[in-house]
Amino acid sequence: MPELRKDPISQRWVIIATERSKRANHYKSSGPPPQAEPKFCPFCSGNEDKTPPEILAYRPDGSRPNTPGWHIRVVANKFPALRIEGGLNREGEGIYDKMNGIGAHEVIIETPDHKQTMATMTDKYVEDILWSFRDRILDLKKDRRFRFILLFKNHGEAAGASVEHSHSQLIALPIVPRNVIDELRGAKDYFDQKERCIFCDIIRQETASKVRLVSENDHYACITPYAARFPFETWILPKKHGPFFEDSQRYEFEALARILCDTLRRLDKALNNPPYNFIIHSAPVNQTYHDEDYYHWHLQIMPRLTNIAGFEWGTGFYINPTPPEEAAKFLRELEIRD
Amino acid sequence: MPELRKDPISQRWVIIATERSKRANHYKSSGPPPQAEPKFCPFCSGNEDKTPPEILAYRPDGSRPNTPGWHIRVVANKFPALRIEGGLNREGEGIYDKMNGIGAHEVIIETPDHKQTMATMTDKYVEDILWSFRDRILDLKKDRRFRFILLFKNHGEAAGASVEHSHSQLIALPIVPRNVIDELRGAKDYFDQKERCIFCDIIRQETASKVRLVSENDHYACITPYAARFPFETWILPKKHGPFFEDSQRYEFEALARILCDTLRRLDKALNNPPYNFIIHSAPVNQTYHDEDYYHWHLQIMPRLTNIAGFEWGTGFYINPTPPEEAAKFLRELEIRD
Repeated sequence: MPELRKDPISQRWVIIATERSKRANHYKSSGPPPQAEPKFCPFCSGNEDKTPPEILAYRPDGSRPNTPGWHIRVVANKFPALRIEGGLNREGEGIYDKMNGIGAHEVIIETPDHKQTMATMTDKYVEDILWSFRDRILDLKKDRRFRFILLFKNHGEAAGASVEHSHSQLIALPIVPRNVIDELRGAKDYFDQKERCIFCDIIRQETASKVRLVSENDHYACITPYAARFPFETWILPKKHGPFFEDSQRYEFEALARILCDTLRRLDKALNNPPYNFIIHSAPVNQTYHDEDYYHWHLQIMPRLTNIAGFEWGTGFYINPTPPEEAAKFLRELEIRD
Repeated sequence: MPELRKDPISQRWVIIATERSKRANHYKSSGPPPQAEPKFCPFCSGNEDKTPPEILAYRPDGSRPNTPGWHIRVVANKFPALRIEGGLNREGEGIYDKMNGIGAHEVIIETPDHKQTMATMTDKYVEDILWSFRDRILDLKKDRRFRFILLFKNHGEAAGASVEHSHSQLIALPIVPRNVIDELRGAKDYFDQKERCIFCDIIRQETASKVRLVSENDHYACITPYAARFPFETWILPKKHGPFFEDSQRYEFEALARILCDTLRRLDKALNNPPYNFIIHSAPVNQTYHDEDYYHWHLQIMPRLTNIAGFEWGTGFYINPTPPEEAAKFLRELEIRD
């Protein structure tokens, strides 16, 4: 019997369509990993002049900016969706509201090596990438025009990556997106009613029942969410309550890199290098109110396995053919090299 | 300069990314129209025994059910996401809520002819398809378990169509999806403040300014919305206020078929048979409260042209590289056969 399940945070109902049940091996149609010798890649070492100048780079060898020698490099997006300069100029247009597209749009080039992906890098390397995310967020937060900083990754063409070379993106926005407002409101409503964080409750229930638990360590739990929208959707939640990703401590980034790499390796093995998006859900910045009590940052990974999502795109109503319990069990039981 | 625009109904902000501006000819990568001789198609005339038995059929020649002779035929989905039999059995699972996946999932086979699409059919034929939508909605509304009936079309593989043969789908749900609740709430908030319908205000502003108007007739306006999420996103709005699609009169279905066919032909010509979804936004059914004052049914068409929608899928935050004014002008100025 198919089930309708409600996400307790967003209040979104999802159909878990057991009659259409699809297991991991139904999805083995993903592309090959990146090739050793691409025709031309602007993100490869040696092509630093083909990107905008670097905003941040980790250069263990002390090399000069915009030359080889870096291991992580952050640049402005060459085709930015937003512009950093100017005022917001909020104005109306009849019944409509608009403002200038002020914001930052940056690319985090995660490695000089075209062949690497986050699933093939060492945990230590990925920890440094997380540090670069933190460094950029802390810097951009100082700009009082920005209200929300979105850190996300498109991996694979089907997930929207236009460049194959491993990278993430950051968009700093002068507004808070609608879905973020919904998530905050859901968490606040729950807190107002129970005086507990809903994410903390989810972590307690999932680490106790284990049916949707993929893995855990001292500081993080990796689960498939109860009302998963997508097959093999996976969330990584910090066990310590806190609204901001960027406030994590050094030992927490170390543990996060470990569980993130482990999860991506499991997804890679289960689904043969699937296209995916990940998104860091962190509280809005520069607000006059505070989300500390009820919001709990986390990371969501969404493999892009199905194209059945026709109308889902437009309605926000999802049909998921793989129950999250099956996905969790499959991922949990895989043997993974360290 | 890119612009941030707010949809006045959903309160969703969208980036109109002028720096990445893409015109119609950037998208000319769509597939060919359906082939005359498919290998095997369960929706073609003669294969009636390959689908579940028909729930409704228009048979001008008076032929027997489940034999050739029909021109529109409605059957249950062979792989339904929901089941029609049973009780809802609402229950909790720790902090989570679920119920049985009760609902209807039907397929409207729009023509016996594999080569036709809604853009190549006559207006009169499409009017009959709209009547079949109405007939099924009126029938399913009688079932008091259902709260929302979703009528949508996936055209083309990239839009999620698993069968090429022209068809639409209907899903009757025991819940109201989250995005529908948001749309209703946005419309109600506006009505509470201004005592006017926001859709009526949009129609007045768009038919007066004409910058986002694609076409209009006595009963409908076709526009590209101010905060369009997708390139060439197009809405068809009835000029007469009313919450329910299925309450339209005969002369209104006639006029709707005309403007819908015209719009699909324009999109076909502009974008070379693009994959698209359309969704009828109609008020929830069997409610104890009433949406009559503030909700206004309409039809949204979303061409699926870009795969840049990586994280949009997960966040509900959209970047649209084609300003709706450009899309409207392009569609408006095309010469279309009648």
